[in-house]
Amino acid sequence: MTWIDDDAFGPQHPFGPQTLAYGLVDEGLAVRVGNQALPLAELNLGERLEPLVKAENLNPLLAAGRIAWSELRARLTEIVTASGAPAGARLVSLSTAKLPFAVGDYVDYYSSRNHAENVGRMFRPDAAPLLPNWTHLPVGYHGRSGTVVGSGTPVVRPKGQRKAPDAAEPSYGPSTRLDIEAEIGFVCGGPVTSEVRTRNAAEHIFGVAVVNDWSARDIQAWEYVPLGPYLGKSFATSIGKWITPLDAFSAARVPVPEQPNTLLDYLVSEEPSGLDIRLEVQWNGTIVARPPFAEMNWSFDQQLAHMTVNGATVRPGDLFASGTVSGKNKEERGSFLELSWGGKEPIELADGSTRTFLEDGDTIVITGWAPGPDGSVVGLSEVTGTIRPAA
Amino acid sequence: MTWIDDDAFGPQHPFGPQTLAYGLVDEGLAVRVGNQALPLAELNLGERLEPLVKAENLNPLLAAGRIAWSELRARLTEIVTASGAPAGARLVSLSTAKLPFAVGDYVDYYSSRNHAENVGRMFRPDAAPLLPNWTHLPVGYHGRSGTVVGSGTPVVRPKGQRKAPDAAEPSYGPSTRLDIEAEIGFVCGGPVTSEVRTRNAAEHIFGVAVVNDWSARDIQAWEYVPLGPYLGKSFATSIGKWITPLDAFSAARVPVPEQPNTLLDYLVSEEPSGLDIRLEVQWNGTIVARPPFAEMNWSFDQQLAHMTVNGATVRPGDLFASGTVSGKNKEERGSFLELSWGGKEPIELADGSTRTFLEDGDTIVITGWAPGPDGSVVGLSEVTGTIRPAA
Repeated sequence: MTWIDDDAFGPQHPFGPQTLAYGLVDEGLAVRVGNQALPLAELNLGERLEPLVKAENLNPLLAAGRIAWSELRARLTEIVTASGAPAGARLVSLSTAKLPFAVGDYVDYYSSRNHAENVGRMFRPDAAPLLPNWTHLPVGYHGRSGTVVGSGTPVVRPKGQRKAPDAAEPSYGPSTRLDIEAEIGFVCGGPVTSEVRTRNAAEHIFGVAVVNDWSARDIQAWEYVPLGPYLGKSFATSIGKWITPLDAFSAARVPVPEQPNTLLDYLVSEEPSGLDIRLEVQWNGTIVARPPFAEMNWSFDQQLAHMTVNGATVRPGDLFASGTVSGKNKEERGSFLELSWGGKEPIELADGSTRTFLEDGDTIVITGWAPGPDGSVVGLSEVTGTIRPAA
Repeated sequence: MTWIDDDAFGPQHPFGPQTLAYGLVDEGLAVRVGNQALPLAELNLGERLEPLVKAENLNPLLAAGRIAWSELRARLTEIVTASGAPAGARLVSLSTAKLPFAVGDYVDYYSSRNHAENVGRMFRPDAAPLLPNWTHLPVGYHGRSGTVVGSGTPVVRPKGQRKAPDAAEPSYGPSTRLDIEAEIGFVCGGPVTSEVRTRNAAEHIFGVAVVNDWSARDIQAWEYVPLGPYLGKSFATSIGKWITPLDAFSAARVPVPEQPNTLLDYLVSEEPSGLDIRLEVQWNGTIVARPPFAEMNWSFDQQLAHMTVNGATVRPGDLFASGTVSGKNKEERGSFLELSWGGKEPIELADGSTRTFLEDGDTIVITGWAPGPDGSVVGLSEVTGTIRPAA
């Protein structure tokens, strides 16, 4: 037993001492211990770390780099596992948590082959489902960083322009095909000003979070050629408010499934860099999917190496997400577009109602966890959002 | 004559009192007067404006909104046209100017029909050059805001993955088709948290700048389906270091060319919102193109209305660019892809050498100006960049 008085704090709990996710509450930067938060500002952390944890958000810590991250995690592990409460320690509510970092650039990948093939079949029914570049590089694009919001932020149904394939002209109105994308996001340190090798990628990745990349499929389908998704995605992207350090996933590393072709050297992953994160999607309380992140075909080290191969710099707070996580099986698909097969196969919820896409008032909760050391469980902070009617 | 001792300061000069572009020099925020800079921090501007101009960059002024922008411009007009030097006024060098604002999100549009058709003919030779959505909405996508750099920053030739149409496999190496895109960018105030109507768009646009959206065509052509350009663009985007206020373009407003179809209401432009800006592209000192911004088919008010129609918010410092400006005539095209027709028609420079795409050591200068009130000329700050060899 440690000094922390929380039934949910122990190795069998997702936010036990093996996790130590970082967040921001009214009392400042904090680490999550079970269902409470331990603010960092008053702890005795030494003169190098203390200015970092007294900052207004995680960005100075992100900029401090991996040595500081490791030092802080080691010190916090000592503190939370001590039998007596250290000086300055007090536990506070999680309820005031907010998005804990300023997002730099936000890149969204497309790294599930199952997802890419499913979307290809629906959006481009007359062509091969997978485009020729997909197995050679992690396809991705920039999203809107200014509309990345913390879990719990309501999502207003977007309005916009769309055109059904059989319509003569486009029309304007609230999206009728509002969807989710269950993803995993990576929060970067930096600045990184030179090309990142896959073997060094973990040096620049601070932590991991669940992401819901809300998507208006009707808007997206009409707008996306030739420059990619824009308004179909830019209204909101939700992220878990506690960032689980990459270090917490040491027992969750798995090999990335091999591509069917030889990869260019800069994309070869030199160690198991897949992560065995299990996601669960709840729609108004009904579990509708369990997407397996371990099946993703491009991993964070390949994505970061690709992002920087052209000389692009990375800033502390840059976020990149994996793309929709979809497994081989139907009940493992991370979007409603796939689960309902373009709206043709309704999904039944526990209350007997059926859904294809999101209705006003619907609430989505996406949770995630991974195996931790010694049989423990490493938690990811849930992402929730409720749909509000169009403005 | 005013107190400003600069031969280049007068209504016939592009940076005369009719322009008053804002920038950031070692002495702080400043306004450009001819070939010198007038720092703002020591001027008597009143208690509301003084904190804004003493900030570390333009963002607090961007956040202050149009009333403050108009008040500051009026007061500076008085100051620079006075016969005697006001208290606190001193002129300093332009040479220390740097990018004067922190870029929020960067969106790049694709609003020249001439350009879109030219690119369509080259990238998709077997299809109609213009995709069906193009005349119904301003096609755009998010670029990388972290690699927007001020004019003069050298551009390192990007490396990456590309595959020639006739190659069996993709290859890795420095881009062999490095290009420019001559564009106009708009710098936003904000935050804007509700949908912007076209008639109110000017309330949220602070100023205008020349942009060079450097593009690696070989990387772009292989990567861009289905999610749009990514590494082909993300290595660098250059912008002029002095932001010309939108207010300076009152005499340059021209109607936007009509689309061939009826527009949805939210995209109807209610006043002439095209801008008669003339661009000039110099390649190692040879003028190779004079792209006419007045021919653009989507205007800033339509672009901002579109950007926010889905509920996306705008932050102070958000930047959106027009897309390549290309006129009907060959010598008006704003990219080398178009000028050399995909590399098939070399361009001859004044020294007798020829070019298709950029070579290491090449320097590009893009300048711009517009008609001002009473026969004056309103200047845009030039964008220059020299290509350095791949790392």
